[in-house]
Amino acid sequence: MKIGVLGSGAVGREVAERLVEGGHEVCIGTRDPEVTLQRTAPGPTGAPPFPVWHAEHPDIDLVTFSEAGAFGEVLFNATNGLVSSRAIAAVGEEIGGKIVVDLANALDFSRGFPPTVVLGEHGSLGQELQATFPTARFVKVLNTLNFALMFKPNELADGDHTLFMAGDDEDAKTTVRALLESYGWRDIIDLGDISGARGTEMLLPLWLRLYGLFGHFRFQIKIVR
Amino acid sequence: MKIGVLGSGAVGREVAERLVEGGHEVCIGTRDPEVTLQRTAPGPTGAPPFPVWHAEHPDIDLVTFSEAGAFGEVLFNATNGLVSSRAIAAVGEEIGGKIVVDLANALDFSRGFPPTVVLGEHGSLGQELQATFPTARFVKVLNTLNFALMFKPNELADGDHTLFMAGDDEDAKTTVRALLESYGWRDIIDLGDISGARGTEMLLPLWLRLYGLFGHFRFQIKIVR
Repeated sequence: MKIGVLGSGAVGREVAERLVEGGHEVCIGTRDPEVTLQRTAPGPTGAPPFPVWHAEHPDIDLVTFSEAGAFGEVLFNATNGLVSSRAIAAVGEEIGGKIVVDLANALDFSRGFPPTVVLGEHGSLGQELQATFPTARFVKVLNTLNFALMFKPNELADGDHTLFMAGDDEDAKTTVRALLESYGWRDIIDLGDISGARGTEMLLPLWLRLYGLFGHFRFQIKIVR
Repeated sequence: MKIGVLGSGAVGREVAERLVEGGHEVCIGTRDPEVTLQRTAPGPTGAPPFPVWHAEHPDIDLVTFSEAGAFGEVLFNATNGLVSSRAIAAVGEEIGGKIVVDLANALDFSRGFPPTVVLGEHGSLGQELQATFPTARFVKVLNTLNFALMFKPNELADGDHTLFMAGDDEDAKTTVRALLESYGWRDIIDLGDISGARGTEMLLPLWLRLYGLFGHFRFQIKIVR
């Protein structure tokens, strides 16, 4: 598939790299590619500046949000949840009909750690985005685990753990499920319509607490039943 | 141990029954025992009226909140989270120094299903209660699963799933951990101080969604790591 990844940070890079490995055509969208390509400082979470990563992945084009939106049959929202709405707005009309895999969480670190989860007036970021861009087909998924595990589920407990998926469009969820299963995911629970995003975004405070406790990201939730 | 269970609903009854089975001395506290003993209508979740249950468990005394508080070395808060503060206030000064196992969630069903989780100005019900009753030693635990599994972890997947515990007092957590381990719990994650309650209470929207999806309560979270 042709896939546009919105967001050039550590998450977007990992998503793009794994999707290319899986045989997909991928580009990364950012607000202003020239600015991103001139960065010399590490990102807020310590990721190397984009050009350092890009030198090792010259096959993945960095383009504008709008160009990434036009390119992809499927888009991945790998932007910071606090600015996702602005990033997707920058895609413009091309967003219509597109599947948007929304793996973002809106975390407000302005008052330190742990951050506040911003759920917004619609109940969650996923619902907020779907309401703001009604012609796009959002699928909330992959927002409950560290990015290093998103496309490598089998690296933890032979993949014996759970993903949650929510979205209004059944075809979009079928496409996203097939894509994720091609990376080894076996237990993807469809929570129903996009309002299911709320419960998954509200997992973040527990997730962050466990991260602080364990001191690493290599953990996941499994729903035992 | 001598244990006072606050709350005479389905959860309080299950807790009391299992604790008696485990060899503990147990009483159930309620606001007004005479009123509770005269009930003829089922509870809001369909549980039989208290006298029906009590006829089968005449060994478990029904007393006032205050008497239950005075009786127990350990108290279980099995009241509806929306009224827990009033119930514990009714215990009076006897709450000082007591371990309070807080398994409640404050769920507001006034706007239908799914309910809103009321986290309060302190971040969670657990933090709210600890701040309101600073001399008590609250341990938040058992609020992330159905009551039928609380004392029977091995009835699901041979007990291969996770409990979360949070509280400010280390001795209280050690006591509660030992009590729960005596019922078969093997993976109890200590999230640290009582602020850890927030993440566990925020699990409820996902829990309720899964309940709606599965149509039963026999599921649990496991933290795979």
